[in-house]
Amino acid sequence: MGAKRITVVIDTMGSDRGPETIVKGACQALLDSEDLDVCLVGDKDAIEKAIEDNKAPKDRIRVVPTTEVITNFDHPVMALQSKKDSSLVKALTILRDEETCVGLVNAGSTGALLVGSMMFLSKPGERVRPALAAVLPAEKGGFVCLVDTGANIDCLPSMLVQFAHQGSDFMKDMYRIESPKVGLLSNGAEETKGNKLVKETHQMLKEDKSINFVGNIEGTNALSGDCDVLVCDGFAGNQVLKNSEGIARRIITDIVKYSKQTGKPEFMALVQHLMATYDFNSLGGGIVLGVDKPVIKAHGAANESSIRNTVKMLVNLAHNKNIYV
Amino acid sequence: MGAKRITVVIDTMGSDRGPETIVKGACQALLDSEDLDVCLVGDKDAIEKAIEDNKAPKDRIRVVPTTEVITNFDHPVMALQSKKDSSLVKALTILRDEETCVGLVNAGSTGALLVGSMMFLSKPGERVRPALAAVLPAEKGGFVCLVDTGANIDCLPSMLVQFAHQGSDFMKDMYRIESPKVGLLSNGAEETKGNKLVKETHQMLKEDKSINFVGNIEGTNALSGDCDVLVCDGFAGNQVLKNSEGIARRIITDIVKYSKQTGKPEFMALVQHLMATYDFNSLGGGIVLGVDKPVIKAHGAANESSIRNTVKMLVNLAHNKNIYV
Repeated sequence: MGAKRITVVIDTMGSDRGPETIVKGACQALLDSEDLDVCLVGDKDAIEKAIEDNKAPKDRIRVVPTTEVITNFDHPVMALQSKKDSSLVKALTILRDEETCVGLVNAGSTGALLVGSMMFLSKPGERVRPALAAVLPAEKGGFVCLVDTGANIDCLPSMLVQFAHQGSDFMKDMYRIESPKVGLLSNGAEETKGNKLVKETHQMLKEDKSINFVGNIEGTNALSGDCDVLVCDGFAGNQVLKNSEGIARRIITDIVKYSKQTGKPEFMALVQHLMATYDFNSLGGGIVLGVDKPVIKAHGAANESSIRNTVKMLVNLAHNKNIYV
Repeated sequence: MGAKRITVVIDTMGSDRGPETIVKGACQALLDSEDLDVCLVGDKDAIEKAIEDNKAPKDRIRVVPTTEVITNFDHPVMALQSKKDSSLVKALTILRDEETCVGLVNAGSTGALLVGSMMFLSKPGERVRPALAAVLPAEKGGFVCLVDTGANIDCLPSMLVQFAHQGSDFMKDMYRIESPKVGLLSNGAEETKGNKLVKETHQMLKEDKSINFVGNIEGTNALSGDCDVLVCDGFAGNQVLKNSEGIARRIITDIVKYSKQTGKPEFMALVQHLMATYDFNSLGGGIVLGVDKPVIKAHGAANESSIRNTVKMLVNLAHNKNIYV
């Protein structure tokens, strides 16, 4: 493995903070992994300016200039078909065509990334809908892969079963968990609890011997770590993800206020400690599952350290996959 | 209003901690409100023993002895029909029949309470399904009424519209909000976001001029206070409620650990401060909406102060309603 080099493709365009933040995050990631090269796609001048100010190893950076950008206001399918010189189309093409490319990071339009991933990275004839997963820190330690978090809002039971497999495969590759525990999000732990979708899915998961199904998980324990993969439709998953973010942000804000009111600045160390666990933005991004090569959707407002973490995830995944193969 | 006396009916049976806790909570509530009497229904000996040890005003307590209990293991409809001398059947009968009775508290089976409320407290011919709401502290101050939190798992758009009206009426009565802002839980603030149910409901709420609909609310802002009433199906509402509880409990536990590790006991004051806002158990319970008189489902593990708070809610509601009428 030592001599083999890998490349992560980074679409530098379309994020809230502009290409500079993305490029700087990518440069930081280069310092984490000796065998990593990055391919930066987007506005040439902006990218080169951001690299210049930087002590990153220039020989490990490739710049691919493009002239178009796909934004949140574009229709995903139409934009992918018409904007041939967009950073996303170019980045996906490079990822698909070059064997050493092990993954892609993008902080732009989620819809275009999902559709593009399916168009460029699905096996021909295979029409698996990609899912968007989030990897969140579990209360008992380790991580929970929540799938789906919003790519598939209205789901059939068969789709939830697919999510179970995709999440399970991902957790095997990413964290080398031999037999990931798969839970089904419900409104109670008992088998009889759930809406129509959950009840039907429960029976299918129970009969599926190729995954390690541990039953229903209720909201209180969504991120407890009772399971490695938590399966739900994209509407419910979006609630869990965003509600957790919202409550954590609120409590942390509360502590900052309390610290000021009581005149006890030592509480700020606690705030730092909590931010390290509960600031989901800095932890990485959404992972597109169900496609040939891993694609990560970073938060639109991702900062440098968030981009660095997403690249690190892709590098880890590549390393682990090589070991498995 | 001064001379008029009101009664809250309390089913003392079926809770996790037994009748003693419920009775003591009820006795504490008597000290909060001069015009309140309580009617305690259940095991006579247990109730009288709990009152005896207490400095509560005995002349404001009425004990109604019963010999049967409806538990979580009973089938709600069958139990309500066959256990005629159960504390729940007796309590609901008293609430329905006696004009001075303004509400009921129960910490037993949620299913039986919901079905019983519909059987005893719906207008004849009216087949409105009761909803279970939770009143949670909003980030901006005040409260958010989340409805439904689990009574109605599979919903039609018309049911969500009903929840909007029920929640709106409740917030008017409870907090004297003239025109409560009604939000619809979704996976994005835009009108086009949501699952099939949410999209259809959005259009119906938009056209309903008798409520103050403010649009979709996403998970991050579920409890921010952007709306006074947050409408969703019981599956999604259950996720918001339980997930919020779970994350809050987890962060508070984290702070306790951090306090021990760093040897800084002053953090425990912060924990107390956070518990006062985020310990949803002690804040009250689920409110049954859509029935003639208010019914509160306290947490099965409710403590004395939780029972006291639920009784206080019913007293406030009665006071405000009198003012409105």
